[in-house]
Formats: sequence, structure tokens, C-alpha cells
Amino acid sequence: MLKDTQSERDSRGIAIGQVGIRGLRYPIVVEGRPSVGIFSLGASLAAAERGTHMSRFVESVHAHQNGITPEVLQSMGRQLCRKLKADSAVIRVNFPFFVEKQAPVSGMVGSVDYDVVWEVIATPKSVQFAQEIQVPIGTLCPCSKAISERGAHNQRGHVNVRLETAKPLALGKLIALIEEAASSELYSVLKRPDEKAVTERAYDNPAFVEDVVREVVLRLKKLKGLRSFSVDVENFESIHNHNAYAIVQG
Amino acid sequence: MLKDTQSERDSRGIAIGQVGIRGLRYPIVVEGRPSVGIFSLGASLAAAERGTHMSRFVESVHAHQNGITPEVLQSMGRQLCRKLKADSAVIRVNFPFFVEKQAPVSGMVGSVDYDVVWEVIATPKSVQFAQEIQVPIGTLCPCSKAISERGAHNQRGHVNVRLETAKPLALGKLIALIEEAASSELYSVLKRPDEKAVTERAYDNPAFVEDVVREVVLRLKKLKGLRSFSVDVENFESIHNHNAYAIVQG
Amino acid sequence: MLKDTQSERDSRGIAIGQVGIRGLRYPIVVEGRPSVGIFSLGASLAAAERGTHMSRFVESVHAHQNGITPEVLQSMGRQLCRKLKADSAVIRVNFPFFVEKQAPVSGMVGSVDYDVVWEVIATPKSVQFAQEIQVPIGTLCPCSKAISERGAHNQRGHVNVRLETAKPLALGKLIALIEEAASSELYSVLKRPDEKAVTERAYDNPAFVEDVVREVVLRLKKLKGLRSFSVDVENFESIHNHNAYAIVQG
Amino acid sequence: MLKDTQSERDSRGIAIGQVGIRGLRYPIVVEGRPSVGIFSLGASLAAAERGTHMSRFVESVHAHQNGITPEVLQSMGRQLCRKLKADSAVIRVNFPFFVEKQAPVSGMVGSVDYDVVWEVIATPKSVQFAQEIQVPIGTLCPCSKAISERGAHNQRGHVNVRLETAKPLALGKLIALIEEAASSELYSVLKRPDEKAVTERAYDNPAFVEDVVREVVLRLKKLKGLRSFSVDVENFESIHNHNAYAIVQG
Repeated sequence: MLKDTQSERDSRGIAIGQVGIRGLRYPIVVEGRPSVGIFSLGASLAAAERGTHMSRFVESVHAHQNGITPEVLQSMGRQLCRKLKADSAVIRVNFPFFVEKQAPVSGMVGSVDYDVVWEVIATPKSVQFAQEIQVPIGTLCPCSKAISERGAHNQRGHVNVRLETAKPLALGKLIALIEEAASSELYSVLKRPDEKAVTERAYDNPAFVEDVVREVVLRLKKLKGLRSFSVDVENFESIHNHNAYAIVQG
Repeated sequence: MLKDTQSERDSRGIAIGQVGIRGLRYPIVVEGRPSVGIFSLGASLAAAERGTHMSRFVESVHAHQNGITPEVLQSMGRQLCRKLKADSAVIRVNFPFFVEKQAPVSGMVGSVDYDVVWEVIATPKSVQFAQEIQVPIGTLCPCSKAISERGAHNQRGHVNVRLETAKPLALGKLIALIEEAASSELYSVLKRPDEKAVTERAYDNPAFVEDVVREVVLRLKKLKGLRSFSVDVENFESIHNHNAYAIVQG
Repeated sequence: MLKDTQSERDSRGIAIGQVGIRGLRYPIVVEGRPSVGIFSLGASLAAAERGTHMSRFVESVHAHQNGITPEVLQSMGRQLCRKLKADSAVIRVNFPFFVEKQAPVSGMVGSVDYDVVWEVIATPKSVQFAQEIQVPIGTLCPCSKAISERGAHNQRGHVNVRLETAKPLALGKLIALIEEAASSELYSVLKRPDEKAVTERAYDNPAFVEDVVREVVLRLKKLKGLRSFSVDVENFESIHNHNAYAIVQG
Repeated sequence: MLKDTQSERDSRGIAIGQVGIRGLRYPIVVEGRPSVGIFSLGASLAAAERGTHMSRFVESVHAHQNGITPEVLQSMGRQLCRKLKADSAVIRVNFPFFVEKQAPVSGMVGSVDYDVVWEVIATPKSVQFAQEIQVPIGTLCPCSKAISERGAHNQRGHVNVRLETAKPLALGKLIALIEEAASSELYSVLKRPDEKAVTERAYDNPAFVEDVVREVVLRLKKLKGLRSFSVDVENFESIHNHNAYAIVQG
């Protein structure tokens, strides 16, 4: 019988908030479509216990890879609490989500990619769920437009939203809500008439990072069952080698 | 006179917690030694104001680049509050810090690099300072040692500590405190007698991520003026393609 | 009719080797299994032409996303040459590939992830195909073992192989060939009897980066239809904060 | 006396092109100014020798950290050949280089950062030197300008140049040469009159990646003592979530 070092008693008197694994990459199925997830899974450890049993976390992902949903992740979190006799468990999975979009004039179709994180914090009696998404956007500077005789600097930016709602919002709806706040949304395929439309739309809708963050927050506040949010907008300024950002939490 | 779009009134009723710049890389001098810092600087913005004046943040870094200390950063934070009429300002600077170390037997000298973050949160009346450090270490698995007839798997790991103390702890002391908790500290130059000493020391001091995080916490709790800490230990397991981690906050 | 700036004449007299797009992330199917690819696609541009038509590259990926194979990529490369009237086209796609592995004693199953690149260089008359793979491994230092009374430092490493063969080698075979050269292969799920076996196997098979690179080369040289190879082994040393590497090309 | 495993004979018959260390971060002084370098150093290894002596590489960096110049690196390369009895040695060092720039109207001063690589390939009898630089720029799309009634999409981009000349070109001259080819160079501090000037300048100088790469090549071809070059321009398109690129080598 091999010694079980992890199950030894620990006399240092320090409980561990989270212990587990990170960076486990697995093929997954999300909302019926395949993707690739990077998992982090952990559980609390009582002060008197020396170590956790790390292989349980991998087993949990392996067992559920064919259908990762917010509900499945919540169930995985509760199971980990039970199996590891832990007060709490945390699961995070980061995966790319794809939306097929039509170009605004030609109607041509291409997929745009979004990074999503789903996070579960479970206890034996309760479970919290949050989603995070990174939406790439285009922004055109209102100051540059107002002071320049021609043109206006614009750039790619990222809107990073973390959201807790009573019922998880569908990713497609969350993306659409965020893209409305930009000078323009982004596309994978654009023909010349599309490029003209996107250029003019952005010029007609200038927005600072301050404007984008506020417009996203206005829309999030209208969501039913909203519990909390954090919005972080970052612009890869085309006139500087550093970025502009704005954050609102609520 | 050019229009000042940023100074327009905003009627959306949403105050912004932080708005500013990120990713500004600058040559700096820290504790008398040159380094390279990556700055993030932001300030709050009242609900009624449309935008902040981003160039002020760069000017602040440019003016103080020749002597970045915890005290200077705190003074920069207070100045930003005044100049931008902001309720709060946040400054973070990330820089590599180097320690010249002697190999344990040969005494040969080489520099080891550590990533440090200094963070200031200032209001017109108060200022908080926190430091974060990433210390690379070696860990040897107690379970692998206990169950195997020969050898034991070991690997590089990172200890990430965030620390608030009444007076900032010197970086060299913080590093030494953390390295004591590892199976072995790391070196840049090792001759064969040094490699033998480091190998045997690690074998004699096996430690799980759970052990390392607890040993660091025990040492931090003894610090005078301790306000808060967070310790995150991550091992790049040599038997898996994913990592093990443990977190304790207090 | 919108102006076609890309189709203007260029009088600077400089032909462009490659022009196209990078960083296009798309859901793909590889060898019947879903994955996520990051594409780079480009084509040559004659000295007299001002620009290429970038949307063609996205259309090509969109049309073939449901079955990416070496053969399909080669056909895509030839098509791009024709459609863009280009002398050559280059396609690279980077994707994670997963192998279900059994732990050596318990037989438990978990997926291990490998980064793969498939690259095509096409002309109207010919097409070259190369594959690149990154295989994570464990290595145990022969010097540390030889000089130490107990233990030996070991660590995770990466073997990066680029390979051109007359017929593309199946990824599973390439991975197995490379893993044989390590002190030990890696696993996602290991129970204690497995961990004992892996620890002892690594201790019994010490290998420098120099040894691993040579063992991989010996195996590649026996492949039928071998055209060229490059092998780069990198160890994340557990006694240093820098890495060791070795490269052989042939 | 400890066993010297590296000095054992090897019977596998495979010479190693390069073996050494990577990712060694060190404080350095370049052109009289402090910076932080990340070093890679390697040497060839004859088929009959089992291993190289890795600590020599660190010692070489440690000894020369106070004055890294192209000449010093070349001398380090020749020394490594001699000390390791190697047919060739390769050194690469990657470091940020800072240029103080005046804003175009206000004259305000701020530093802009550029990533530089210096590379030496040495044999006992000869030495080659190459420099690589990444210059961030702004580009404005000629097609978008031509077809749109107002505005034009623009974005940050990177020009990556690799250059071999008989005598190393001063970094400041190389940067200026590259920035001339962009729609606009970038700045760290811009006041409103500067932002107006930069916006209008970019609008008046639209450039595809194809244009930028050709303009850089035209200027490089005029350099005295030119041996070889590679130019890679990449735009972080503000209308797509992928990038455009163009490469010319000569």
C-alpha cells in the first residue's frame, strides 16, 4: 500500500482558500458547438489537512467535456465539494466563442471570435455563476474628430465585461449589447461597400473609452436579474504606443 | 481655440471608477538602480464630466522616471488627484528587480530576476501602497518522494505575493522570506558542486504547493505592521502538462 | 462604382514576397475532430501591383473550416495562387491536438494537448507541406543524478519539431516518436501508483537537452520519405530561472 | 572529484548545431544607457561530445553586463567559441530602447519604446552581426479613404526589420528611417494641437501594409554597406479582429 502523503494531518493551523490545477486544456462542447477550453479548478482545504487530491479535478473535466454549460459547471462545483469534503470549490473555463456575422452591405458571412470565461463558486449549499467576455470593437476618437479638419484617429479596442445575473444571459445577446456601444463592431469578411459603410458608421459614432464604458453600463443596468458587473474598456490607440482604458464596476 | 471635447458635460449619470492609460513602458531608476517599468495610471471621473486628460498621466511618469520609490509613487498619486480634480487615482508599475546571488558552494555570482509591482491608490486625503512580487522557486513533490524507490519529481514554480504593510518591506527581505519556503531557491550560475548541493537540498525539503503557501503565510504573519496579504503558489508540474496552485489570503 | 485602390499600378519596382492576414481564429475540424485554428494566409504580389485583396483569404478559410487536412490546405494554397494571380501562396494554421492517454498503471484516461502547425507553400505548379508540433515532456538531469547522493533535478520541457516528409506523418505517430526520447512522457490523470511509475521511469532515463535532441533526430532519420527536419528542445530548468535548449537541423 | 557527465563521449554520431541557454534576463547598459536584456546564448557541439557547459554562458553575460555594444557581443561570441572549443556560437539579446521625442506642435517631450534584438553568429575566424527592431506606427487605409465620404479607418501597426550592414546602423537612424514610411509616427505625449497635427498628417498619408513595406525597403536599399534585410509590417486592423501583414526580404 503506497503512502498517502496528501492525507496527513497538518499542524500549521492555516486553512487554504483554494488549491487545485490550472492550465488544463481540453476539447469541449459549448451550447452544442465544439470549442477548446482552458480550465482552472480548485477547492478549499481545511487547516488540519495537508493536501488535496489533484487528479479529481482532471477526472471531473474529462467526465463532462461533451457538454459544458453554466448548469453543468455548477453541478461540477457542487460535486467537487462533496467528493473532496471541501467548504467551497471554484471552476473557471476560458474558451473562444464564435459568431457568424453578415457584412453590413454585401451580406457575406464570416465568423468572429470572442474570449469567454465561465466561473462557478460552489459551496455544499449554494452556487454562484459569473460570465466574462472580451469583445473586440472599433472606436473613433471624438476629440480628434472635433479638432481636425479631416479624418479622426480610430483603433481596435477590447471591452471586457464580467457579469452576474440571476439567469445566465445568452452569449450572443451579451455580445450584441456590447457591440452597440462601440463606434463600430468588427467583421471577418468585408467587401469594399462594407468597408465604406463601416468607416462612415465609425466616423458618425465617435466614442472615448469613457463613452463606451458608460454605454455598456447603461445597457447592463437594464438587464433583468442583474447582480453585479464590471466593465473594462481598452483602446490600442493609433497615435500612441500605449493604451487608454476605463473601468466601471457596480 | 481648439474644442475641448473631454471637458464637455455628460448627462448619462455614470461615474467612472478609473480612467487612464496602460502599457506605458519607461526607463526608470528604482532603489538607485536602473530598470524598465510598465505603467498603468488612472483616476476617477465624476458622472457629470465626459472625459479625462490622458496626457497628464504620461507627464507624471516622465517627470519622476529618475527615482521611482514607494514614496514618490504615493506623491504622484496625490498630485494626480489634485491636477485632475479626481476623488481617487491609481498607479501601478511593473518592473524587473535583480538580486546578485552567490552559488551555495563555489560562491560564484550571478543575477536572478524577479517581477515586482508597486501599486498606489490615492485620494486627496489618504494613500494606500501595496507591493506584489513573483519569486521563481524549485519544489520537490513529497508524495512522489514517499512512494518512489528512487528520485522524486520536481519543477520550477512561482510564488506570487501581494502585500500591504504599514511601511513597505524592502524587496530583498521579502524575496529571502519567500525563498525559505521553497524546496530550493533558484540561481543563475551553478557549478557542479553547487548543483549537487541544490539537488540534495531540494530532495531533503519536499514541499507541495499547499506546504509552500502555508510556509510563506506563516512568515508574512510575523511581519510588523502587516495589513493584508495574498499568496498564490503555482508549480509547473514535471509529470503533467498543467499546473498545480494554492492560494491563501488574509 | 467604388474606387479599387488595391488594383492601382505601383511604380516603386518592389515585389512583395508575402502579403495577407494573420491571427484569424476559426473553429475547424481536423482529422474528424473539432478544434480551433489560428490562421495566417498570404500570397506574393508583383512589383507592378499596389495591393492584394485581403477578403479572399478569409473566404478561403470560411469555405474549408469543416475539414482541414494537409490535402485541403494544399488545395487552398493552389486556389489562392489562381484567384489572386500570384506566383506563390503561404498558409499556416496553428491548432491544439488532443490525445487520450492511459495512465501507465491504473489505466485511467485523460487527454493531453499538443500545439500543431500545418504549413503550405504553393505555387501554380507545385506545393510543399510541413508540419510543426510542440510536445511537452519531462526530463531528468544526468549530471545532477550522477553527482548527487539522492534525487536529481527534473522539469517540464518542450520538444519543437518541424518536419517535411513525402507523405505527412500521422500526428499520433509523430508524438509517440518524440515522447520515446524523453525521460518520461506527460499525462493528465495520474493516481499514486502511476506517479510512482513515472517518477522511477524518469530517474532511470536521465537525459540532457543534448540527449533528447539526438534521440529525436535518430528516430526522424529513419522515417520514409524524409525531406527535412528541425528539432528544438527546451527545458524549463528547476534549478535556474532560465531555460536550456538544443537545436539540430537536417 | 565529481563526475563530469557533460564531458563524456557520445557515440550517436549527431553533431548539435546550437546548445545553450534562453530567457536569461539581466540588467544591461546599451549605448551608455541602462536597459534590461533577455539573452539567448548557444554554441555548436561536436558529434563525439555529450554535453556543453551551460554555466559559461551566464558567466559571459555577467562579465559584460555593464557595456553591451555590437562590438562587445561580437567579442563575446568569439570568446565562447574558444572557451567551449566550438565551431560556432550564437548570441541574441532582446532589449527595449527608448527615444525621447518632441510632440510636433507643443514640443512636449516623452519617451517612446522600441524592442531591439542584436544577434551575433561567431566562428573562431569570423563574426556576423544583425540587428532587429520593432517600430510601432500608425497607418491609415488608402482604400477606406478613397471610398468613404468621411473618415478613414486607421490603426496601430508594427514594422519589424532585420538588418545586416557592414557597420551597424545607429538605432536612432534606423527608427527615423522606418517612421518616415508610416502614415504617422507615434508619440507618448500629445496635447490637442499635436493630436490635430498627427490626425491630419495620417489622413494626408494613407498607406497599406504593402505601401509601408515598400517604402521601408526603398530606404534600406540606399544604406551603405547593406548586406541583407527582412521587413515585416503588421497592422492591427480597426475593422477586423485579425491583422494584415506584408513581408519583403532581400
